[in-house]
Amino acid sequence: MNEFERLRDALRDFSAERDWDQFHSPKNLVMALSVEVAELVEHFQWLTEEQSHHPSPEILSAIGEEVADVLLYLIRLSDRLAIDPITAADHKLSLNALKYPTDKARGNSKKYTEL
Amino acid sequence: MNEFERLRDALRDFSAERDWDQFHSPKNLVMALSVEVAELVEHFQWLTEEQSHHPSPEILSAIGEEVADVLLYLIRLSDRLAIDPITAADHKLSLNALKYPTDKARGNSKKYTEL
Amino acid sequence: MNEFERLRDALRDFSAERDWDQFHSPKNLVMALSVEVAELVEHFQWLTEEQSHHPSPEILSAIGEEVADVLLYLIRLSDRLAIDPITAADHKLSLNALKYPTDKARGNSKKYTEL
Amino acid sequence: MNEFERLRDALRDFSAERDWDQFHSPKNLVMALSVEVAELVEHFQWLTEEQSHHPSPEILSAIGEEVADVLLYLIRLSDRLAIDPITAADHKLSLNALKYPTDKARGNSKKYTEL
Repeated sequence: MNEFERLRDALRDFSAERDWDQFHSPKNLVMALSVEVAELVEHFQWLTEEQSHHPSPEILSAIGEEVADVLLYLIRLSDRLAIDPITAADHKLSLNALKYPTDKARGNSKKYTEL
Repeated sequence: MNEFERLRDALRDFSAERDWDQFHSPKNLVMALSVEVAELVEHFQWLTEEQSHHPSPEILSAIGEEVADVLLYLIRLSDRLAIDPITAADHKLSLNALKYPTDKARGNSKKYTEL
Repeated sequence: MNEFERLRDALRDFSAERDWDQFHSPKNLVMALSVEVAELVEHFQWLTEEQSHHPSPEILSAIGEEVADVLLYLIRLSDRLAIDPITAADHKLSLNALKYPTDKARGNSKKYTEL
Repeated sequence: MNEFERLRDALRDFSAERDWDQFHSPKNLVMALSVEVAELVEHFQWLTEEQSHHPSPEILSAIGEEVADVLLYLIRLSDRLAIDPITAADHKLSLNALKYPTDKARGNSKKYTEL
């Protein structure tokens, strides 16, 4: 069992113990995911790019909590739709390698709208 | 090396080969993350909750790609800030267990604003 | 002077009096706008569609505040880019009328990805 | 009738003519609003703050369309909840003036998390 599967199972248990599956439709979960991402954005909105590399220890800790929330909702959403995020990510990485060949993409932000 | 570390390293190489580190400030990455989440939201916005449990095979495949994008940007953002998402998620799960004791949270959506 | 222009000027004065123009780059403002929209989303994430039509008076009041924040940031962003939101909205309405002819779009959510 | 009321009525007619009221629950509309804001964010994600002040004419035109989409969904959402955005914005401006007195807020981004 990998780390994703372990977290997925922990979230399943967490929800089942609280009878929360009834609230966890994919539609609701994707809304909750977007709210958590915005809480992450909020920490960066008034920082310069340079400042964003060096948040204070308190802010970095708060950012870590939001990263966790985003990851947990993403795993929960994936589970409810029977999507394996690792397989999906590996597939996407191979698509991106084709989409952005190194010689054309080098140093060019216009060449990509994806990672 | 776990799955997260493997994906983290693949993204490091991908960016380095294309000279993209210059664009990958945490501020920029968190914006890109929020855009990918919205592309995920877009698939669900006009569905009922019931429909959202059963997307068509084509839509499910597209959802899988967006899940991958969200995960990849989240891992990349975490790497640039030296955050370990797994450790952060485990920490958050233990906080959530304290925040939502099973006897009080059972079947009550008002009791939680977190997963 | 219409209502938009009045609010635009009030925001200009508000920012100038606090020396905040330095923080109000379009990039920063669009991040702040996305955060305010997520605060709006947060009020609806666990509601059913039916419930979302009838928020409690307290929630409706909180929703009104978030609507205001979204509108104010949208006007401020537009001002910094010399965009007139009314002209833009009228233009978009005429494009939408062409894109979604009434006979084809009737009762069909698949026909639109726009309003 | 002010500009908001005129746009509100145009959207009412647009939706009624296409039998789209059934899809326009506040929950769905706030999701659509968040997607439109992300399309706005997308134009700025890889720009520096300085660059974000000077988008190319083509990008500025595309930004104007997204501003319009955000405004139209915001007006439509407000209408479905019987919220008057102008009244809400005026109220919020007066709250912000109390929250951020000019002498304390001057030149200080930490003093505000709101506009």
